[in-house]
Amino acid sequence: MTLFEPAACQVDVAAGTMSGATGRYQKRLADLVGLYADDAAFQAALSMSNNPVVYDVADFRPSAKSGDLIFGITRMSPGLIGEEFYLTRGHIHAVADRPEIYYGQAGQGLMLMESPDGETRVVEMQAQTICYVPPYWIHRSVNTGTTDFVMVFSYPADSGQDYGIIEKSSGMRHRVLRGGPNGWQLAENKDYQPRSSAAIAAVMTS
Amino acid sequence: MTLFEPAACQVDVAAGTMSGATGRYQKRLADLVGLYADDAAFQAALSMSNNPVVYDVADFRPSAKSGDLIFGITRMSPGLIGEEFYLTRGHIHAVADRPEIYYGQAGQGLMLMESPDGETRVVEMQAQTICYVPPYWIHRSVNTGTTDFVMVFSYPADSGQDYGIIEKSSGMRHRVLRGGPNGWQLAENKDYQPRSSAAIAAVMTS
Repeated sequence: MTLFEPAACQVDVAAGTMSGATGRYQKRLADLVGLYADDAAFQAALSMSNNPVVYDVADFRPSAKSGDLIFGITRMSPGLIGEEFYLTRGHIHAVADRPEIYYGQAGQGLMLMESPDGETRVVEMQAQTICYVPPYWIHRSVNTGTTDFVMVFSYPADSGQDYGIIEKSSGMRHRVLRGGPNGWQLAENKDYQPRSSAAIAAVMTS
Repeated sequence: MTLFEPAACQVDVAAGTMSGATGRYQKRLADLVGLYADDAAFQAALSMSNNPVVYDVADFRPSAKSGDLIFGITRMSPGLIGEEFYLTRGHIHAVADRPEIYYGQAGQGLMLMESPDGETRVVEMQAQTICYVPPYWIHRSVNTGTTDFVMVFSYPADSGQDYGIIEKSSGMRHRVLRGGPNGWQLAENKDYQPRSSAAIAAVMTS
């Protein structure tokens, strides 16, 4: 009988990394073109910088089988494009009824969530906050602090990621800007295109 | 469209607890009768104490649906019965191909794992160690330190727990005793009854 061998990974909270990862990727500012409201500020930030890393991810993927689990770590740099905080690209799961669990390790941030029919939810996260993103919620992380925002995550191995859903609606319904009593505030995304009933139904059966 | 609402739980590492849990249970020493090698030491420990809590668990269970996730926190007290460290009852998943992820938060301990055909694996855990318990591995946690051993965990919502598999083999093949260069050592469990080929095959198809 050949079984998959147990594994151990050590998280380095300060570095936002994890030993033993089977995969890693990073997103630099230029990879995130079109995601921010203020395109002039985006171009200025790009031209005044060396295309900085906005976030990086390391994960452990034992398999893609239904019933298995993937886990990993995300580290997000602090920063603003105009008044809008650095964010991840965001996704819904390709198998849309798959949830995800995020566990804050360092820094300050938000889990910004949107239902297919355009309801917004926000969970404020700091070290030791666990956020449960239920099935069918589009989700994106935002660093609202001034230091690295680090989270460990886990999701079903057969979830997949659909990044196109946010692009098709010209972004999520809300943006996260500087301001407000906790340092952040939501603003309507003027470009947002609500999903049609057919598009919502397609998500709910995917 | 009614979706399950996002949730946030705050972990208190020092207390080994989590806010927002939907369920909690605890195991006291008397609940663990028969698990330890030294029955006289067990009875003495019981009679000299007020039936202490050996471990407690708080979890968040959004559903039991395939594809969903359960998460929670385990806090284990430090202690010895004779030379044997405090342990959890241990289980294999009722749906045996479901994995589990444990994330060390405080203290020192082990994840003791056994394959259906009797191979043992050990992962040493401390704060920020993530242990991936792959499909089909029986697993039990052991506090090898002198302080609370705390872990956060996540597993597929349809996994279930089969505690009987350990009872049927009169325990796991190895016990964890005081000693060794890292403070612990494995010892053969003299009562251990290896599983039959038929029993192994039954696990591998469950």
